[in-house]
Amino acid sequence: MRITAAFSIVIASCLLAPPHVAADVTKPSRSTIESQYREVATRIIDATMQQNGAWKKMEGLCDGVGHRISGSPELDKAVEWALATMRSDGHENVHPEKAMIPKWTRGDEWAKLVEPRISDLHMLGLGMSVGTPTGGVTGRVVIVQDEDAFDKAAGQMRGAIVLFNNPMPQWTHEKGACYGHTVRFRGKGPRMAAEKGAVACLVRSVTARSLRSPHTGATHFHEDGLSIPGAAITTEDADMLQRMVDAGEAPVVTLKMDARYHGMVPGANVIGELRGSERPDEVVVISGHLDAWDVGQGAHDDGGGCVAAMEAISVLRRLGLRPRRTIRVVLWTNEENGVFGAKQYVIDHKDELAKHVAAIESDSGTFTPVGMSVQHDDKSRQAAMANRMTEILALLEPIGPMKATEGWSGADVGLMRSAGVPLLGQNVHGATYFDYHHTHADTLDKVDPKDLSQCVASMAVVSYIIADMPGRLDDLPELTPTNIHSTRGDIKSAPHHR
Amino acid sequence: MRITAAFSIVIASCLLAPPHVAADVTKPSRSTIESQYREVATRIIDATMQQNGAWKKMEGLCDGVGHRISGSPELDKAVEWALATMRSDGHENVHPEKAMIPKWTRGDEWAKLVEPRISDLHMLGLGMSVGTPTGGVTGRVVIVQDEDAFDKAAGQMRGAIVLFNNPMPQWTHEKGACYGHTVRFRGKGPRMAAEKGAVACLVRSVTARSLRSPHTGATHFHEDGLSIPGAAITTEDADMLQRMVDAGEAPVVTLKMDARYHGMVPGANVIGELRGSERPDEVVVISGHLDAWDVGQGAHDDGGGCVAAMEAISVLRRLGLRPRRTIRVVLWTNEENGVFGAKQYVIDHKDELAKHVAAIESDSGTFTPVGMSVQHDDKSRQAAMANRMTEILALLEPIGPMKATEGWSGADVGLMRSAGVPLLGQNVHGATYFDYHHTHADTLDKVDPKDLSQCVASMAVVSYIIADMPGRLDDLPELTPTNIHSTRGDIKSAPHHR
Repeated sequence: MRITAAFSIVIASCLLAPPHVAADVTKPSRSTIESQYREVATRIIDATMQQNGAWKKMEGLCDGVGHRISGSPELDKAVEWALATMRSDGHENVHPEKAMIPKWTRGDEWAKLVEPRISDLHMLGLGMSVGTPTGGVTGRVVIVQDEDAFDKAAGQMRGAIVLFNNPMPQWTHEKGACYGHTVRFRGKGPRMAAEKGAVACLVRSVTARSLRSPHTGATHFHEDGLSIPGAAITTEDADMLQRMVDAGEAPVVTLKMDARYHGMVPGANVIGELRGSERPDEVVVISGHLDAWDVGQGAHDDGGGCVAAMEAISVLRRLGLRPRRTIRVVLWTNEENGVFGAKQYVIDHKDELAKHVAAIESDSGTFTPVGMSVQHDDKSRQAAMANRMTEILALLEPIGPMKATEGWSGADVGLMRSAGVPLLGQNVHGATYFDYHHTHADTLDKVDPKDLSQCVASMAVVSYIIADMPGRLDDLPELTPTNIHSTRGDIKSAPHHR
Repeated sequence: MRITAAFSIVIASCLLAPPHVAADVTKPSRSTIESQYREVATRIIDATMQQNGAWKKMEGLCDGVGHRISGSPELDKAVEWALATMRSDGHENVHPEKAMIPKWTRGDEWAKLVEPRISDLHMLGLGMSVGTPTGGVTGRVVIVQDEDAFDKAAGQMRGAIVLFNNPMPQWTHEKGACYGHTVRFRGKGPRMAAEKGAVACLVRSVTARSLRSPHTGATHFHEDGLSIPGAAITTEDADMLQRMVDAGEAPVVTLKMDARYHGMVPGANVIGELRGSERPDEVVVISGHLDAWDVGQGAHDDGGGCVAAMEAISVLRRLGLRPRRTIRVVLWTNEENGVFGAKQYVIDHKDELAKHVAAIESDSGTFTPVGMSVQHDDKSRQAAMANRMTEILALLEPIGPMKATEGWSGADVGLMRSAGVPLLGQNVHGATYFDYHHTHADTLDKVDPKDLSQCVASMAVVSYIIADMPGRLDDLPELTPTNIHSTRGDIKSAPHHR
């Protein structure tokens, strides 16, 4: 969701957080991370892969709660579940942190081809969309693939239903899913079409594989009244409409949506901690988002991210591993349609952000972990982070080959970027994520228990080392050479050796 | 559908067709097929792959008509479309042949988990199932995997909803899809559960890959009143219920189905021919079934089979290739829930079946062709067919490697087996067929135009050779040695050399 003007101002000011302060402790050289943390990393991985409570947590969240959209009773239930589960695991400082979040409901909805023949179109309304009048809206279909085609067809859109038929390419190892590029019309399409006089907007579901599976997701929200209903139809239905138009037919569609925005309602981020032994006021955030779309079970998006974070500190606690700094689990609310949970966190914790030594988010599904991305507002520090993460990720070698990359971390932690917080995103093997993303099919059976355990182990090892190592992940290399010896001495007394 | 007692008698008697009569013409040796038909086969393949009308026909049937269940107005429309299309292609003897077929309608239907929490289950009622009372039926879920588990749990089924949770294994090259083994509870499950006092029956959808995709299909039909509603739920929902039961919970489900059987109504097989030049009364049937389930577009099941047959004779006609015998396209009605089209054909044509030199069905989807299966009531003749088909299929080498196998041909042509008709089934690469089978996702985009063209070419080449070669496909080898020379002389004047 595009943030509204009023909120933008609040966020802009809160992002002017205290500037990054240089590390107050020494930091290890490459060989130090390897020599000091190899043993404990292997111990964490072995223990996690042997037994952990992540799958049981997934059952609790996915089967016990189910889907949980922002502002729903189910999301309230998920908050209660997360609080109870983290308390039961013995974590410290377990509490909710209130945030006002949007409540939007889908209601009854359908789409139907009415000319040249009658046929159901499989669809899901876009989150935050306005609804249609009671009888729906009907219009001939104008199909465009991209902005250029849109401009060319703009004169035909008055009274029409515009379909943005922009296909997601097949996932490749080199290019990934191309989500960011493909999804753009889901956000901006309805407004573009509205400005040309269209009565509704359809977008091709953002996926490269479909079994007549509609994919929802947020569309931009506007409070100025110039909004038309927006819905995603399946790739199959988009292909059929395209074939009809290519054959010279003039398909007409009726769209009915009872979608409604109910305003802002109370919600909560959920916090739980493994408190640091020496510098508990310094924090490594590990996180996923607790809200999910109102279809499926939010298993990969983002139940798995939440559970990986929750279970990571449970594993450390069971092993008696307490790092110097605090590891704080944050389960964000309302990532999907507003990011208002993370926005509130940045406001509430702004005096503390300088002591956030890292914020990690897992929001790309719980598949085989393949590394982490690093992101920093300062490119030199981002490069330093990447180098240091390469050393840390080498210790995950028992799981598989890992890579540190520079780039996108996560939608929630991303809001801490301008405050100079070092950000990380859990990267996973992403070939199938967008088959399930925002669909009825994002269910627990799609999660592989071994992958899930590996994600727990990855989160536990990385957060433990970052929380325990003397220096900060984003310390610049120039500051350190003279400190290597004292660092080594320091680390020998680290709690994981006890 | 299990055939009812009254119909069984009719069918049993009509299957006592005249016994197989020995071939009245000589037949070619292995080298003769190769030397006489290699050139024409290559010509057919090249012409087909260069250009053909199959995709346009698929658009007409899938997009223009859409799904077309037995007894529906859409199936009537498909019959009209097929007649008009074959007439437009210039075929001979194009006509419908009336058959009485069952009319069953789905109506409104849904399933819901109501305990321990409320959640929609994605489902499709089983074809020919009875409906529920207006308010639906509600029962605790008893889950069984197989017949043994069913027997053990039989005492708990009174008033319950029985779920047959029998998973389809992943497709493998060696074992294929294991459809026959996995699908058995869809047919017999509701009756089994009814006999133990259950109020409804759910079956796990018969697929190894799902995006919350319910798969319908026929269940056995009984006129004795001991019937309970039957529906397929998705593998995802079956897995969830299983996890709940395994965790000691007692899920309760409500099932609502307005399904209704309306009795027998008029329908039609559609016939079109490329008449033979020398023995037009001898017939090679090439066929698919025109009816489809009432979801999706019936693209792979079995629009592609129909179109491959239709286009095969159009290709031959355009090339001026008229074989000695007649190639008859038969588009069966009501394969899915009764096979009453094929039953009627066997009755109406019973005096002609001895002159059916082959009946080929394509009903496994329109993927890359990989060969043909042969089936004969006489195992010696079946073996002879396999040998001869190996020779014929070798001529499809420009398409890819092909194999003749002995076994299942097709549900429709299968009814001619006891009349001694040589049967063939088009085999295709089957790794994904059951992802789409009987679902909303069986749509035209799942058909690859190149695969479709190859299926047309396969059907055209095989039917042409079988219709043209002097001997019958099922002639026993012992009968032939002395005739090889005369055969060769005979073949030199075959029409494809003109």
